Amino acid sequence: MAESDILERFGERVRKLRKKQGYSQEDFAHACELDRSYMGGIERGERNVALRNLQRIAETLGITLSQLMKGI
Amino acid sequence: MAESDILERFGERVRKLRKKQGYSQEDFAHACELDRSYMGGIERGERNVALRNLQRIAETLGITLSQLMKGI
Repeated sequence: MAESDILERFGERVRKLRKKQGYSQEDFAHACELDRSYMGGIERGERNVALRNLQRIAETLGITLSQLMKGI
Repeated sequence: MAESDILERFGERVRKLRKKQGYSQEDFAHACELDRSYMGGIERGERNVALRNLQRIAETLGITLSQLMKGI
């Protein structure tokens, strides 16, 4: 797979997990204290998300970083 | 814990895993195709590492991203 695919797989993972918890993208971005357009970019696989924001996303979902990365 | 601690925990995790596999920091940086000083910064918890470099580190160690993040 191309290197960029990691970003797409991560974006799909985030979208799946936040929908499973019933968040709209806007509400989820707000809960993570991230900009809504940035969150859209994450879900579209356009953002090379770094540890601090990965941690915010995991905390908001109530899971560990390891769980967040599962299967990607 | 302070927000920066995620970076320190990740750095300790990387150091532990690369030592377990018998890599010097220099050899490991080279295997990851990352700059040695950047790798030093990662291990000291000074770098907010993003998905593409996380992926390189996991691939070099021969583990999944989920395993790389275990316990941090």
